[in-house]
Amino acid sequence: MKKFYIAKSRRLRSTPYTNRIESQGVTAYTIYNHMLLPASFGNLEKEYFHLKEHVQVWDVAAERQVQITGKDSSKLVQLMTCRNLSKAKVGRCYYVPIIDEEGGTLNDPVALKLDENKWWLSLADSDVGLYAKGIASGLSLQVEITEPDVNILAVQGPKSFKLMEKVLGKKITELNFFGFDYYSFKGNKFLVARSGWSKQGGYEVYVEKREAGQRLYDELFTAGKEFQVKPGCPNLIERIESALLSAGNDFDSEDNPYECGFDKYIDTESDINYFGKKALIKISKEGINKKLMGILINIDKIEVTESIPLYNNNKIVGDLRSATYSPNLKKVVGIAMIKKECWDKKTPIELKIGDKKCKGTLCDLPIA
Amino acid sequence: MKKFYIAKSRRLRSTPYTNRIESQGVTAYTIYNHMLLPASFGNLEKEYFHLKEHVQVWDVAAERQVQITGKDSSKLVQLMTCRNLSKAKVGRCYYVPIIDEEGGTLNDPVALKLDENKWWLSLADSDVGLYAKGIASGLSLQVEITEPDVNILAVQGPKSFKLMEKVLGKKITELNFFGFDYYSFKGNKFLVARSGWSKQGGYEVYVEKREAGQRLYDELFTAGKEFQVKPGCPNLIERIESALLSAGNDFDSEDNPYECGFDKYIDTESDINYFGKKALIKISKEGINKKLMGILINIDKIEVTESIPLYNNNKIVGDLRSATYSPNLKKVVGIAMIKKECWDKKTPIELKIGDKKCKGTLCDLPIA
Repeated sequence: MKKFYIAKSRRLRSTPYTNRIESQGVTAYTIYNHMLLPASFGNLEKEYFHLKEHVQVWDVAAERQVQITGKDSSKLVQLMTCRNLSKAKVGRCYYVPIIDEEGGTLNDPVALKLDENKWWLSLADSDVGLYAKGIASGLSLQVEITEPDVNILAVQGPKSFKLMEKVLGKKITELNFFGFDYYSFKGNKFLVARSGWSKQGGYEVYVEKREAGQRLYDELFTAGKEFQVKPGCPNLIERIESALLSAGNDFDSEDNPYECGFDKYIDTESDINYFGKKALIKISKEGINKKLMGILINIDKIEVTESIPLYNNNKIVGDLRSATYSPNLKKVVGIAMIKKECWDKKTPIELKIGDKKCKGTLCDLPIA
Repeated sequence: MKKFYIAKSRRLRSTPYTNRIESQGVTAYTIYNHMLLPASFGNLEKEYFHLKEHVQVWDVAAERQVQITGKDSSKLVQLMTCRNLSKAKVGRCYYVPIIDEEGGTLNDPVALKLDENKWWLSLADSDVGLYAKGIASGLSLQVEITEPDVNILAVQGPKSFKLMEKVLGKKITELNFFGFDYYSFKGNKFLVARSGWSKQGGYEVYVEKREAGQRLYDELFTAGKEFQVKPGCPNLIERIESALLSAGNDFDSEDNPYECGFDKYIDTESDINYFGKKALIKISKEGINKKLMGILINIDKIEVTESIPLYNNNKIVGDLRSATYSPNLKKVVGIAMIKKECWDKKTPIELKIGDKKCKGTLCDLPIA
């Protein structure tokens, strides 16, 4: 597969860590929320095995925050998501599908309730801040919507717990999954959440002061030597096996949250008020005809740059949206949107990769 | 400057022309509206001189359309822009700064009035569709907001007129600047506007059927041989010299439309209704303290990947946002946001490129 350079510019924003990861050997970027997000340090498979055994520090500043403050902030956040946030607690993270009035899925951020009247939405790749501004203007809500200069560092992998304890102190071991709290390092306070875009465990540090964040970045590598720390990034193999969905890759606004498998984050029963509720009630009554599933394909490489149609007996039964070779399963693993007729997982799937015909088997998510 | 690959995925959408430009030698992409936008075919300067003399065909499918239809469509479009569209005519294009309630500039699309109740906003790089959806939901407007599968081909350069006449017929020569109309090619109708992201003249073809567009693409190269046609893309040198502003590069939501020099597209006098009007009235009364200007720097190369601070006597007087070497002017040309104290164009400007100190001179836009 031919490779192409990225033409950098101010519009594709650098992060406070860009200089560091470039001197540490990043080779490829993707663009995420108009910002550079590292995609590889040269060997995806090595990075995969390393992530599953040791600890990595990731520049995920591209997970931008929409900050919503003011007396109507909770109302606005609720209007955008089908998840019931009426009992949300300060200090907790919530995975919140953002939907439009037709029930299309616009994003799947993690919402952090910082205060009774202060929220962050830690975004996947779309300008949810503009959606929020539109609603707020339309309804004349008492809110302020900004993109604060928050630049997340993720510390991921089984040894992330030891490393973070060493750097930030013992108290951090008490933090529960999807909780967040403040921890000090060299006189600066950092908001740290136990979260991240891998299933290998770890933390996300919501860095609010650039220079303090850079010092923390450097310290994580100094202190991390004994844990074989390496720079890294969300790993395509790991995230597909773990079914950590990627907005824009695995789903988009043409898919509703039921089709994405977000059922447990959808509330159509209570009296909460959000745009798209009527649409979701209708969908929940009628049922869905497609959903995301895993797929295993007996080939040893693939590069998905757009939807790849999936067939059974020359009839399209779905489309493949993300896939990569898994050195663990020794085959290609993927995430695909699949029509109802194939949900039994018994239907053989055919697809064409270039000129080559291949066969696949469907499975549930997560794959491994 | 180190180069980095782009990690392709479904999320960074390909266009109907991607296969073609990749076999024609594209070397670099940028990402624009979550889509691949070619940035170079290997030699920016050669492409610059070619564009100014001959004709190029550009894959600018990344200029995505927000389609707004329904009885409140004109109301919604007006709510988003400070330009008075009350007398807008079907068949005309309008450059419309999109602003938020604080008067920040969110985008600068070209609006096409397709019908009394049908508009397209041909976007720069931000999800204005989400802003529109938010407003529409907030105000319960009778509109439908979609992203149609429109993939623009631009034909740019002085010989574009001859080439388009040869392919689409004599009638196209009657099309005025920023007008649009429909023209036939091999049984398919194409919406063609006299517009484009260069000042060298030309057209944008709003392709609504992928395969028909691919056939047109191929024909433009066959018919274009006698005009030395080449594949191309918006050219950094040409666009900076011509001061074709780039949203996200030259301005963002922290800048108001007065600071961007959009004065003639701002209406604070009439009774039109848009979000941000109150803010703009206040700004117009108080005056602005920074604005976009041109800058000339006596060096022979530069790569701007983030704002570069500009100094006078060790005091920051602005920041450089886009710049490139102009083989025409034999110096670096740039677009910078400049504080009022330097608007006289006499203040010498200092900046650091890497470790090197350089000097610059301010000028009006466009530069050349």
